[in-house]
Amino acid sequence: MKIAVFHGSTRFNGNTEYLAHHVVPKEKGSHIYLRDYNVQPIVDKRHSKEGFPHVEDDHTQLIDQVLEHDILVFATPIYWYGMSGPMKTFIDRWSQILRDPDYTHFRGALEGKKVYLVLVGGDHPHVKGLPLVQQFNYICQFFKMSLEGYVIGQARKPGDMAENKHALEEASRLIKEDYH
Amino acid sequence: MKIAVFHGSTRFNGNTEYLAHHVVPKEKGSHIYLRDYNVQPIVDKRHSKEGFPHVEDDHTQLIDQVLEHDILVFATPIYWYGMSGPMKTFIDRWSQILRDPDYTHFRGALEGKKVYLVLVGGDHPHVKGLPLVQQFNYICQFFKMSLEGYVIGQARKPGDMAENKHALEEASRLIKEDYH
Amino acid sequence: MKIAVFHGSTRFNGNTEYLAHHVVPKEKGSHIYLRDYNVQPIVDKRHSKEGFPHVEDDHTQLIDQVLEHDILVFATPIYWYGMSGPMKTFIDRWSQILRDPDYTHFRGALEGKKVYLVLVGGDHPHVKGLPLVQQFNYICQFFKMSLEGYVIGQARKPGDMAENKHALEEASRLIKEDYH
Amino acid sequence: MKIAVFHGSTRFNGNTEYLAHHVVPKEKGSHIYLRDYNVQPIVDKRHSKEGFPHVEDDHTQLIDQVLEHDILVFATPIYWYGMSGPMKTFIDRWSQILRDPDYTHFRGALEGKKVYLVLVGGDHPHVKGLPLVQQFNYICQFFKMSLEGYVIGQARKPGDMAENKHALEEASRLIKEDYH
Repeated sequence: MKIAVFHGSTRFNGNTEYLAHHVVPKEKGSHIYLRDYNVQPIVDKRHSKEGFPHVEDDHTQLIDQVLEHDILVFATPIYWYGMSGPMKTFIDRWSQILRDPDYTHFRGALEGKKVYLVLVGGDHPHVKGLPLVQQFNYICQFFKMSLEGYVIGQARKPGDMAENKHALEEASRLIKEDYH
Repeated sequence: MKIAVFHGSTRFNGNTEYLAHHVVPKEKGSHIYLRDYNVQPIVDKRHSKEGFPHVEDDHTQLIDQVLEHDILVFATPIYWYGMSGPMKTFIDRWSQILRDPDYTHFRGALEGKKVYLVLVGGDHPHVKGLPLVQQFNYICQFFKMSLEGYVIGQARKPGDMAENKHALEEASRLIKEDYH
Repeated sequence: MKIAVFHGSTRFNGNTEYLAHHVVPKEKGSHIYLRDYNVQPIVDKRHSKEGFPHVEDDHTQLIDQVLEHDILVFATPIYWYGMSGPMKTFIDRWSQILRDPDYTHFRGALEGKKVYLVLVGGDHPHVKGLPLVQQFNYICQFFKMSLEGYVIGQARKPGDMAENKHALEEASRLIKEDYH
Repeated sequence: MKIAVFHGSTRFNGNTEYLAHHVVPKEKGSHIYLRDYNVQPIVDKRHSKEGFPHVEDDHTQLIDQVLEHDILVFATPIYWYGMSGPMKTFIDRWSQILRDPDYTHFRGALEGKKVYLVLVGGDHPHVKGLPLVQQFNYICQFFKMSLEGYVIGQARKPGDMAENKHALEEASRLIKEDYH
């Protein structure tokens, strides 16, 4: 199965990325760093006559990556007990894709994909990160994707994650499927 | 007590705004429409030597509004089972304010403020909006603010909320304190 | 539609009951007080050769009430952030009913029933009662019942609920369907 | 630190127990099987003049075990997305202990104890077990105990857990403190 990791950190080589690279090693799968893509915030035009305007940015490149892979890993630091801004902006625009005549297959194509989460926070993430797991689960339900598992890491300062052997081992065993 | 409503919709006069105006009538309190302010996404520099750069935008105007009021109402449509992009961007930047030498009083000044939520979504918001309530509750806990209550409305199409007498009445009784 | 309220309080005329009687007046629908029925805790024999033993108690009377009504209201005080013991004992035994040759129609017959919740607690029930809403939602999902709504009341001492006009009004408007 | 595992299964040697024995080996710590104790359901007399009656059962033996240990592990199968009946009955009676003149030290003595959870269910427990984690977290908050971690296992049939190497390894690394 083909796997893609969507990295939502704004920092290079931060704790979330470190943990995510233990879930899927750098040299395997497709690693997509959202901070390298220009994605505009959604302007909600679902109910306007003219519909959504064409947006000149990189969002459809990301959507094409979603479509090409069977397993999707969403790796995000926990900011204020939610996903990072780049991750939310990326997903919010899916509302526009659902109405894009070039992507009428989008919703159906997501059905059956397997999803994993990598979440890293500083303030009791094993408890206070659970609403975020539940939010992702509702997103998966909407598309009939299957939330297969998640790993939650605690980290405050750069380098914390490298010390957390327990989380790293858990991460390395998270994905149950064979992938490349 | 002084009340401010932070409106997180990107649409003018949408369902969330309609419901929020039943919580706090337009002519009372301060109504702040986040879409009218330029707020840049956070770039996480908490751990870089140089710290956060100065950002030329309207964020501190919003923060000053937060500080001036005793009751804060956060009104947001539910997008993908989370808060709207403008609302999240606004709140994410609080991490930067916490390190801003001009706002060393920010964290302490929030303690004891009362918070209400107005959430509107189309897909079973009374259940699927609960992780968002829990997320806001953790934000309140962090600042020792008190989450006093919330109203959740269901709406899909423009105008739906005006039909929902039940939610409107519930909204009009949400705030228990006297305010102006 | 036929409505039944399952009351889970151990106290006569307590706060939860008071609120539930505003959801469905005493003189309408069927009011079932679980404390008046002898229901034995489940002994998990799902996987034993001999299966579940016959239990001499009142549980099937309650199950027959579930089956006879279209709308089910579960009213329970929040004890340690969960449902009351009598309510949990009642529901736990559904696992046994699912394997009872006299009730092979049980699971199918629940599909499409509408469910409402009445929850009353003393410690921030509007936030700390949410996991209980989510738990009931999963129970509904299992049976393809629809969780239509809930009302949460705050009360500590006997009589508190009678003072809470807001919750009582909300309760009286909770059920959207016509019923008798 | 002294550790006690409270086992909430009604079955001997079931999946939850199997997993819990990987968290704390049988020969270490105190293993308490709630099914071996007679604990009566609470009758809520918090607000009656005469107070709670004396109950002739084994509950205070269990409470004494709680008090004697520094780390408490609650191991329960997930029944209808909540804790097992014996576990809930055990905890519900804590309301009575809080008013017991022989246990005025109970609440204070719990402060600072460390809590771990072992939860096993058949229906997507990694997502549908999260409200139960949140419920336990609120219980811990009430007593100022610290919810240090949890392991969630998936199992349907007897013996399933023994096949689940991943969960067993995770269990064996759950407790971070030294204990005996």
